[in-house]
Amino acid sequence: MISVELINTGSELLLGATLNTHAQWLARRLSDSGYTVVRQTSIPDTAKAIEEALREALSRVDVVVMTGGLGPTSDDLTRDRVAAMLGLRLLEDAETVRRIEAFFAQRQKPMPARTRVQAMAPEGAEILLNDFGTAPGLAFELVAHPLGSGRSRSFLALLPGPPRELRPMFDRYLMPWLQRRAPLATEWACRTLRTVGLGESMAEEIIEGPLQGLVELGLRIGYCAHVGQVDVRFSREGEGSQQLVEEASRKAGKLLKEWIFGEGTESLEGGVLEALRASGNKLAISESCTGGLLTHRLTNIPGASDVVIAGVVSYANAAKSAILGVPEELIEAHGAVSREVAASMAEGVRHRLGADYGLSITGIAGPGGGTDGKPVGTVFLAIAWQSGTRVIKRFNPYDRLTFKEVTSSQALDLLRRELANIGRDEPSS
Amino acid sequence: MISVELINTGSELLLGATLNTHAQWLARRLSDSGYTVVRQTSIPDTAKAIEEALREALSRVDVVVMTGGLGPTSDDLTRDRVAAMLGLRLLEDAETVRRIEAFFAQRQKPMPARTRVQAMAPEGAEILLNDFGTAPGLAFELVAHPLGSGRSRSFLALLPGPPRELRPMFDRYLMPWLQRRAPLATEWACRTLRTVGLGESMAEEIIEGPLQGLVELGLRIGYCAHVGQVDVRFSREGEGSQQLVEEASRKAGKLLKEWIFGEGTESLEGGVLEALRASGNKLAISESCTGGLLTHRLTNIPGASDVVIAGVVSYANAAKSAILGVPEELIEAHGAVSREVAASMAEGVRHRLGADYGLSITGIAGPGGGTDGKPVGTVFLAIAWQSGTRVIKRFNPYDRLTFKEVTSSQALDLLRRELANIGRDEPSS
Repeated sequence: MISVELINTGSELLLGATLNTHAQWLARRLSDSGYTVVRQTSIPDTAKAIEEALREALSRVDVVVMTGGLGPTSDDLTRDRVAAMLGLRLLEDAETVRRIEAFFAQRQKPMPARTRVQAMAPEGAEILLNDFGTAPGLAFELVAHPLGSGRSRSFLALLPGPPRELRPMFDRYLMPWLQRRAPLATEWACRTLRTVGLGESMAEEIIEGPLQGLVELGLRIGYCAHVGQVDVRFSREGEGSQQLVEEASRKAGKLLKEWIFGEGTESLEGGVLEALRASGNKLAISESCTGGLLTHRLTNIPGASDVVIAGVVSYANAAKSAILGVPEELIEAHGAVSREVAASMAEGVRHRLGADYGLSITGIAGPGGGTDGKPVGTVFLAIAWQSGTRVIKRFNPYDRLTFKEVTSSQALDLLRRELANIGRDEPSS
Repeated sequence: MISVELINTGSELLLGATLNTHAQWLARRLSDSGYTVVRQTSIPDTAKAIEEALREALSRVDVVVMTGGLGPTSDDLTRDRVAAMLGLRLLEDAETVRRIEAFFAQRQKPMPARTRVQAMAPEGAEILLNDFGTAPGLAFELVAHPLGSGRSRSFLALLPGPPRELRPMFDRYLMPWLQRRAPLATEWACRTLRTVGLGESMAEEIIEGPLQGLVELGLRIGYCAHVGQVDVRFSREGEGSQQLVEEASRKAGKLLKEWIFGEGTESLEGGVLEALRASGNKLAISESCTGGLLTHRLTNIPGASDVVIAGVVSYANAAKSAILGVPEELIEAHGAVSREVAASMAEGVRHRLGADYGLSITGIAGPGGGTDGKPVGTVFLAIAWQSGTRVIKRFNPYDRLTFKEVTSSQALDLLRRELANIGRDEPSS
């Protein structure tokens, strides 16, 4: 096992001014590659805090990954502090100077003098290129260093703070470096199947028995529930792991087939867009209680405009009639939150916009608006296509934001099932 | 200064399966109340990790707040481990048993036997009520305890993992307990002004000079930039702080008046909805490149349906014409991303839906779709009302998600300025 600690520097983290998204992103990348993240720490931008945290971490684990503090301003102390602690001289790296100059030249901006400090690198450090900014990352292999507390080798990587600089740097340069310098001692395999419309315990119940034999051979199964979605992760270390994890995910893939929308970090919305594109179909959306989230999720994917014609957030009943052509009498007879209005919304938006599929949602997000017959959380979803319309009812009694998330996932799932021709039965939950 | 460390337990955090939102939420609450958060640590759900992290933290700081591990399952070890470390017997709390029974009775569900373990509390611990779940929190005042490393008093609080349980418990029970048992030694004040449409350095430039005198009296000014928004935080400790921070925020409030949309944790969308409601106006939205995010943000606020009639996400040009009545010739003559089409979209959606205000966005989110004259990031925003239409142009050359965030904030700001009758000048950036 190769143990890793993450240290995130930034006083704004301790003031609660910023959400730490690095911790999750880095932990996921490292864990899925077989490295064991045993601790994550956030500390302020002070020399004392940086030195203490680094000293402690190096005494405990094989690899330390530290983020932030590599910029050109006075509170960027990491480069200097680390060089001092490790007893390494700082030398200017000519290639980095050239890259920084090119960065500003390309943007036709003058290069601030302070920026040049980012080209200083501790002697012997590996320079990790920054393809999206000016501060390079730094990686160190420490051989029998006193801070390593008796370890023959320790590894330390410093990464810049901005996510759009850190993430490609990690994938392109740090991970390959780490896998070369600190390879896993044994074979490792990890795969994650992503499901929608299935509870965590239900997923476990379905695959537990059939995979028991593989679990006895060392397979680890992890479940992680997000709002409306459950990830099932298979991992194992040791000889034959690739094959065993492959077999596990093939078996589970069959058993969970109708609920699986992707693997690894694939998204439900991305999969649905891809299926629409592949089948040459265009989509129009009419959502009410989800307030635009469904359309927002789909349009987060580049190229969505090829297949999504439009979304209508028909909050008021008048909008349902004026834009979608839902008959006022239908709303009066059945209520805006009803099977009939859901169907009419899906058919209306499909027809008005000349789409192949019309997808609709109408429901009560709360906290207000519920009745005895239709309590907060009641929702109807419909899909309309050339030769039919299908409506399902769901009950999502959650807080407003969770309601929007879960309900929009159910709508994506309804469309996914239709496109994949998966049985018309109501999915279990 | 009262120092605090946060410890978040949960193996899913180290696998990167879950985003740690507790750290930011708790750090913000504690910092704004004058407590100094000096470190945050995430550790797995193992007895060894819990004991090590707790021992270290108690040796360093006055207050330790730990989250997770209080549930009824086998990986919930925190209660037992802490009792063992502190040498306290676990006793069943009758009132907690009663509350757990009532929790299940109210939901007409049987009470699982394992649940009862959550009523076990270490002797002498303060029980923090859980108004939204079954696991109570626990708070300890440790007097001259060996783990406190010579401190006369240390404080330890254990909170349950689910955010909807943790947050109200912290606000209603833990913070008052902490303020009673571990009050700040001196007066403390903190206020945050929230601005939109202003860069961080611009904000600094405007208030730096006029507030110099107060800074010399100990005022601290912090800036925190979110996408499209900048928070300006004033804080100070010591006698007279309330008055001094009050004066600072009054002065800055005047200087930054036109950019300020709220205070503390108030949201831009919440403020805009409130202003619409107060003035009795209704809104219709037509967004293109933001793909539904603007409508999603507004409808996250309960009661949005009172003032938001509908949102149209008119991705395809055909949708702009069919639903909003934008003349096809206008799109042909000027392009979908143009001043003219933005105006027509705002006027069209206002007219079609009988709204008081029509708000529109058309632009190029990227990564594809840019041209020399209209590169990726180009956007036009328009607002239409009874007697006029106003269009502004912005350039937001960011990644797709940042583009959507920034652009939707600019649209909210355009509406905010219109409602508040703030000068029609283009806001500086």
